Amino acid sequence: MSTESGERQLVQWLSRMPATRDPRVRLGIGDDMAVLDSGGRCVLMSSDMLLDGVHFDRTMQTLDAIGYKAIGCCLSDCAAMAVRPIGVTVSLGLPGDWTLEDSKSLYGGMGRACDGHGCTIVGGDTTAWDGRLAIDVAMVAECFPGVAPVRRSGGRVGDRLVVTGRLGGSILGRHMTFPPRVAEARRIVEVLGERVHAMMDISDGLALDLHRLCGASGVGARVSESQLTQVVHDDARELARMDGMPALDHALTDGEDFELLIAIQYDGDVATAVPGVPLWAIGEMVETGLTMVHVDGHEAPLGRRGFEHLR
Amino acid sequence: MSTESGERQLVQWLSRMPATRDPRVRLGIGDDMAVLDSGGRCVLMSSDMLLDGVHFDRTMQTLDAIGYKAIGCCLSDCAAMAVRPIGVTVSLGLPGDWTLEDSKSLYGGMGRACDGHGCTIVGGDTTAWDGRLAIDVAMVAECFPGVAPVRRSGGRVGDRLVVTGRLGGSILGRHMTFPPRVAEARRIVEVLGERVHAMMDISDGLALDLHRLCGASGVGARVSESQLTQVVHDDARELARMDGMPALDHALTDGEDFELLIAIQYDGDVATAVPGVPLWAIGEMVETGLTMVHVDGHEAPLGRRGFEHLR
Repeated sequence: MSTESGERQLVQWLSRMPATRDPRVRLGIGDDMAVLDSGGRCVLMSSDMLLDGVHFDRTMQTLDAIGYKAIGCCLSDCAAMAVRPIGVTVSLGLPGDWTLEDSKSLYGGMGRACDGHGCTIVGGDTTAWDGRLAIDVAMVAECFPGVAPVRRSGGRVGDRLVVTGRLGGSILGRHMTFPPRVAEARRIVEVLGERVHAMMDISDGLALDLHRLCGASGVGARVSESQLTQVVHDDARELARMDGMPALDHALTDGEDFELLIAIQYDGDVATAVPGVPLWAIGEMVETGLTMVHVDGHEAPLGRRGFEHLR
Repeated sequence: MSTESGERQLVQWLSRMPATRDPRVRLGIGDDMAVLDSGGRCVLMSSDMLLDGVHFDRTMQTLDAIGYKAIGCCLSDCAAMAVRPIGVTVSLGLPGDWTLEDSKSLYGGMGRACDGHGCTIVGGDTTAWDGRLAIDVAMVAECFPGVAPVRRSGGRVGDRLVVTGRLGGSILGRHMTFPPRVAEARRIVEVLGERVHAMMDISDGLALDLHRLCGASGVGARVSESQLTQVVHDDARELARMDGMPALDHALTDGEDFELLIAIQYDGDVATAVPGVPLWAIGEMVETGLTMVHVDGHEAPLGRRGFEHLR
């Protein structure tokens, strides 16, 4: 793609395709998972492709770690909708030097990620080629009992914006080891119920993903610099020392945090809103625009910056 | 992988992994689709990865045709289990020269394949990289009303072996344009019911896939040369003229026919067993071994030959 908005163009073009008239598709392209109906039961699916040189680097990371991340990304999709993983299929494009031992390492990491969330590898497809390692994981999930899937599109003016963890600098290592927030998502929705209006996982950077959440919800947002400063990860500060970019900018634009971004209707202290689940407030939803309220009081537009895969 | 049995080694190793204790997984690795249970409903999933230079060639085929094939392979998985497609996710690894027009062509072919089978593209993942085009399609399906999914493992001694179409030479073009046998599979199971003991789609060549069917069913098979000769595709004969390999060998070992291989308990003329669905008998299931009964009466082992992706 020739522009940084290539991915958006593609998704927009896809979303303008003739809408399906199949009542089995409750929610199609544009959210973290698709929601299908099979005989009145809610079935969810998503897929994540990880490519050598983009999402991981075989010369830098172990295949165990790469396998963990591949499953983790799909589990994070489940967290983003507050649903329960069932099974995954794993498709592999394998480079020429691949060995059975490599498979064992990769599947070892995958199994480790699955086990922690009651998920199973149930199938897949494997092909040798002369390209680099390509991994696709497809996930099927179901609703937790009594909990409806949470979409990106339900955010309302006045909602508090909260996140489940500190942000930025994940490239220093956390992007390979993050814990998918599946259990936290379930807990949040069990405790707050319908006060949870919208949710997604932060995979391409807070600023960009917040633009997506606002776009889907048809509202704007105001982020508080002083609140966001509390959520800057130590890794973002370390990266800032290395590259000179402000740590706050790393927290705003670095990809692969895999924390949840949630719009909730809640007046109290969000830090204690869900016992056992750390939450940080970072701002609120407003009628229009996406801005940052700086510590000195001035308000400035928050750019649509972050990691877009098609540039 | 260093040997031609690499794929088998991997699948065998995977199948020896500790069996899941999750009752939601009714059927895991080793069949055409996994069978999951969600609240008593049967949900099926599979994935197929297509790679430039292996399954298609971007310099030879249009992106529309490549898109059609990518969906077609997953639809053929549904046919192999006699189940009904619901939706697919599409993951793409895109090379540097990719354009929005390319996406439109690819998704055009995908939509064409989906539409013919009441299936919908419901999501996916797109990443640009410096590798060649990689496509993964993941499928979610459900049972046709009153029809249980058909596995590979139910073949019994005395079953007739039948196929839904002529075989061999698909590389001359048919491997990009094949019609997935979803409707035929449904019709076969509706008409023959529990007399359909085992089924799979022929993707890696009849000989290899028949070995797989026999292995899963724990029985052997005897293929009739005279019957198989009736099922040799004209493309196999043309290819034989080009490369000197017997047309019958092409029918036995060429990949990507995407016809169904079925073990049925049926004494009559299989050609008329299912009105509207052409079926050809090619042999029968026996206690052990896999052999070909030649026209001159001698019986010889049928090698485990075909297209294995890990060599």
